[in-house]
Amino acid sequence: MNIKITGTGSYIPDTIEKNENFHQHEFLNTDGSTIDSTNEVIVEKFKAITGIDERRYAKDHLTSSDLGFFAAEKAIADAQINPEEIDYIIVAHNFGDVKANTIQSDLLPCLASRIKHSLGIKNPKCVAYDILFGCPGWIEGVIQAHAFIKVGMAKRCLVIGSETLSRVVDKHDRDAMIYSDGAGATIIEATEEEGGILTHETASYTFDEAYYLYFGNSNKQELSRDTRYIKMHGRKIYEFALNHVPDAMKTCLDNSGIDINDVKKIFIHQANEKMDEAIIKRFYRLYKKSIPENIMPMSIHKLGNSSVATVPTLFDLVKNNKLPNHKLTKGDVIIFASVGGGMHINAIVYKY
Amino acid sequence: MNIKITGTGSYIPDTIEKNENFHQHEFLNTDGSTIDSTNEVIVEKFKAITGIDERRYAKDHLTSSDLGFFAAEKAIADAQINPEEIDYIIVAHNFGDVKANTIQSDLLPCLASRIKHSLGIKNPKCVAYDILFGCPGWIEGVIQAHAFIKVGMAKRCLVIGSETLSRVVDKHDRDAMIYSDGAGATIIEATEEEGGILTHETASYTFDEAYYLYFGNSNKQELSRDTRYIKMHGRKIYEFALNHVPDAMKTCLDNSGIDINDVKKIFIHQANEKMDEAIIKRFYRLYKKSIPENIMPMSIHKLGNSSVATVPTLFDLVKNNKLPNHKLTKGDVIIFASVGGGMHINAIVYKY
Repeated sequence: MNIKITGTGSYIPDTIEKNENFHQHEFLNTDGSTIDSTNEVIVEKFKAITGIDERRYAKDHLTSSDLGFFAAEKAIADAQINPEEIDYIIVAHNFGDVKANTIQSDLLPCLASRIKHSLGIKNPKCVAYDILFGCPGWIEGVIQAHAFIKVGMAKRCLVIGSETLSRVVDKHDRDAMIYSDGAGATIIEATEEEGGILTHETASYTFDEAYYLYFGNSNKQELSRDTRYIKMHGRKIYEFALNHVPDAMKTCLDNSGIDINDVKKIFIHQANEKMDEAIIKRFYRLYKKSIPENIMPMSIHKLGNSSVATVPTLFDLVKNNKLPNHKLTKGDVIIFASVGGGMHINAIVYKY
Repeated sequence: MNIKITGTGSYIPDTIEKNENFHQHEFLNTDGSTIDSTNEVIVEKFKAITGIDERRYAKDHLTSSDLGFFAAEKAIADAQINPEEIDYIIVAHNFGDVKANTIQSDLLPCLASRIKHSLGIKNPKCVAYDILFGCPGWIEGVIQAHAFIKVGMAKRCLVIGSETLSRVVDKHDRDAMIYSDGAGATIIEATEEEGGILTHETASYTFDEAYYLYFGNSNKQELSRDTRYIKMHGRKIYEFALNHVPDAMKTCLDNSGIDINDVKKIFIHQANEKMDEAIIKRFYRLYKKSIPENIMPMSIHKLGNSSVATVPTLFDLVKNNKLPNHKLTKGDVIIFASVGGGMHINAIVYKY
């Protein structure tokens, strides 16, 4: 028995938030002081590092579970399965449903229950739960689905990553420009087909790193100290990722027995273009090789960082030939990898 | 190989909130109208149905992850294990860390990362994630730990249920009196000892039931419509639980091959005394039997409903001979069962 991704779907919100839209923002340093640059310069620098040109925001009437539902519908259609035959719905997110212009996370019921409800699934044996695991949540959901299938608790799982980060950003923080909204979904199934998940690897670094990404106050000191936003220690995260993600990927690849030369694509969490490039460079350096051409599809330029949604969305785009210079052929070995708040890291070596 | 609970711990907050403390509350109907009874009568009626005399509230400076950490420390000590040898930390909750007198859920990093950080665990191979699954979250965490051990991904898991429901109650809703704060933790291990988890069962009912428990507005109409609280359709939940929980428990017990007469204790989610009694009565009726004496330990009178924390806390109390008329002897068959927001139901048949 092999365990494969038999269907994918993603939901990319229509509303495009361009870098220029931030030209009127009042960006401040963390201590509330003004930044010694014009917004045009701030935005240009931001773009040079992250690669982000524009990002997507969900329409006001939609929440994260709605986005997840839209992506799930497509994945189910793509896999051509009967939704009543899904054994697990696993939803990765980090902030729950946050209504536009409010500050509370709505987590009751869990988003998986909401999505199952929206899909109209009646079968009570379809277990619907949420996982919180930072940006690597979708990959971890796939790893959990894999375990449930392997142990005989499930045959078919729907794993979703959905997030509306635009609802939790501090408008006075330059990092606000990074975050985006979106959802990706996949069907994971036991199959007799060749390939599928070969190996996986997960690590949680919390001793020094637990609060590298955290919920904190606005840079605008006058705003209520009771209201908090997504915040990060960017430099520390960058160094952490470079030090640990390549190793996790190498362990995962080596355990699979696959040669580095046979890796066709790496789908890495779209966090920051420069960081992703540095990770991949260091990964190949572990094998004393330089980065092969077109190894790393990127969606960050147009879609920003939508946390748990980036990897399944990127995979869905490439699978459907929607990214120039990137296509997948049956038998291709690919790597999924992610790093994010927690700090958590994971990777999967997968034969397409 | 068997999979057993090798250590337990719980954290019961010191602050006792007695029923009398609600005598000065302004309770309102859901439409905002005043209730045609004195508070004394409201509180007496409440007590007659739920059995709750008093509940516990966490001190203001503590959050849910702190409570979970205190319980985890005790479980680790009880199991006499090296925390660096824990492979998974699974934390069940439904509202994240909510600071006293604020309305935001803090979910970044996930509570499992915070608890792992507080425990000072360095091993990055210890994977720390959160599960949202309504009140049955702790039991579901145990079921997931069981799967990870069975499939060879783990040998030893720390499963925690922690909640501070006092931070999300609507003071103008009589149901506010139900909710309580607390945490329970357990170590789940592969062992050569006899017994352990024999069978488990899970169901998610979302077609009609997804929003029986939900996040909604205060009964006090003047309060901001942007602030929401834990809310429930009590009558619907009561009927739902009676219709479905006994069946799930029966399926689980029948799959284990254990005779109903050999069940020594049932540890059921402390939701409401009358409801729990009715569930157990109906469960025994499925076997054409009446409820045996002392089958169902209850902590609700003094501890209220602390969601994910009730079952592990109750088990910890009985294991440590802290509930009169209840003790466990090696070889005893017991059932864990829960029902809650989602709506989710689960059960485990366990040989002590």
